[in-house]
Amino acid sequence: MKEILAIIRPNMVAKTGKALEAVGFPAMTVISCFGRGKERGYIDAKLPEDVDKEKILKEGEKLGMRMKYIPKRMISIVVDDTDVPLVVGIIMKINKTGKPGDGKIFVMPIDEAIRIRTGEFGIEAIGN
Amino acid sequence: MKEILAIIRPNMVAKTGKALEAVGFPAMTVISCFGRGKERGYIDAKLPEDVDKEKILKEGEKLGMRMKYIPKRMISIVVDDTDVPLVVGIIMKINKTGKPGDGKIFVMPIDEAIRIRTGEFGIEAIGN
Amino acid sequence: MKEILAIIRPNMVAKTGKALEAVGFPAMTVISCFGRGKERGYIDAKLPEDVDKEKILKEGEKLGMRMKYIPKRMISIVVDDTDVPLVVGIIMKINKTGKPGDGKIFVMPIDEAIRIRTGEFGIEAIGN
Repeated sequence: MKEILAIIRPNMVAKTGKALEAVGFPAMTVISCFGRGKERGYIDAKLPEDVDKEKILKEGEKLGMRMKYIPKRMISIVVDDTDVPLVVGIIMKINKTGKPGDGKIFVMPIDEAIRIRTGEFGIEAIGN
Repeated sequence: MKEILAIIRPNMVAKTGKALEAVGFPAMTVISCFGRGKERGYIDAKLPEDVDKEKILKEGEKLGMRMKYIPKRMISIVVDDTDVPLVVGIIMKINKTGKPGDGKIFVMPIDEAIRIRTGEFGIEAIGN
Repeated sequence: MKEILAIIRPNMVAKTGKALEAVGFPAMTVISCFGRGKERGYIDAKLPEDVDKEKILKEGEKLGMRMKYIPKRMISIVVDDTDVPLVVGIIMKINKTGKPGDGKIFVMPIDEAIRIRTGEFGIEAIGN
């Protein structure tokens, strides 16, 4: 099993989740985060137009960060080894706009998964 | 060493932390997240009765998510390999209600741990 | 490649990010979290003086936690194996105050990294 961790734009979460669900991966965890990439761009250049910039900046300051940190979402999906290329491919297809800030995907090893309700483990626990 | 990552209900964090502390695992990190599971249920069916549903829905929308994403907490505990069964067992015992949404536990490999204040590493750094 | 995960004080994020950027590691993800350490201290003892304690306590309660959980930030940096000692050293240098609550650093294995925009992977994807 692998954990696929993707750092993507906030407005891409719903679309990514929908695409993954459509091909049999309904389970997903979403965490709000701030990211800073290679481009070191200012927040102004990255925010969608319909976002309240003042509010975002204040949010960032509260977390002890400067303008260069962009609001992102981290999504985590745990899959069987053989499903890694498919899930990575879907995330790339949906999130690639070609502009800086599209995000990154990390594939991490995972030893075990357990569904608390049933005690199932391994593939059964993540069984999609 | 292993990282034990559990995705549980928000109202189970205090009880889980208390149980882990009682058996010698005081260290824990808690992250607010949203989860979507195999059941794909609507948020209505999962929220505790005493929760302000409208507020939660707005919170979810702000993060770019739909109704199907349920507020969860991710807890992370780093332990010695030999303590994995005990810690997993405690988390399961506390969090199992038998209803969908009890959550999942993931066990991940970890190469090294360092306590910043002292420079201790390995078991000494996580030493409970 | 390794993921370096550090749990540090909120007011150390900007300084840590600046130091890492200065030596060639501009990419970083920051997540707001709550931590509980070995010391089990009360929140009163740990908060910087200029913090609105009441607000923090309410924030903690909303997440289902008690006073003992301290607001922290989790920072994640993905680096080449050979850069691990350097990045860990910088994080320790910046964050060590000698007081409880300085935080911890974890080094985790990572199988693959992909930059969504370009499809680059491995060292190219994290290339600083």
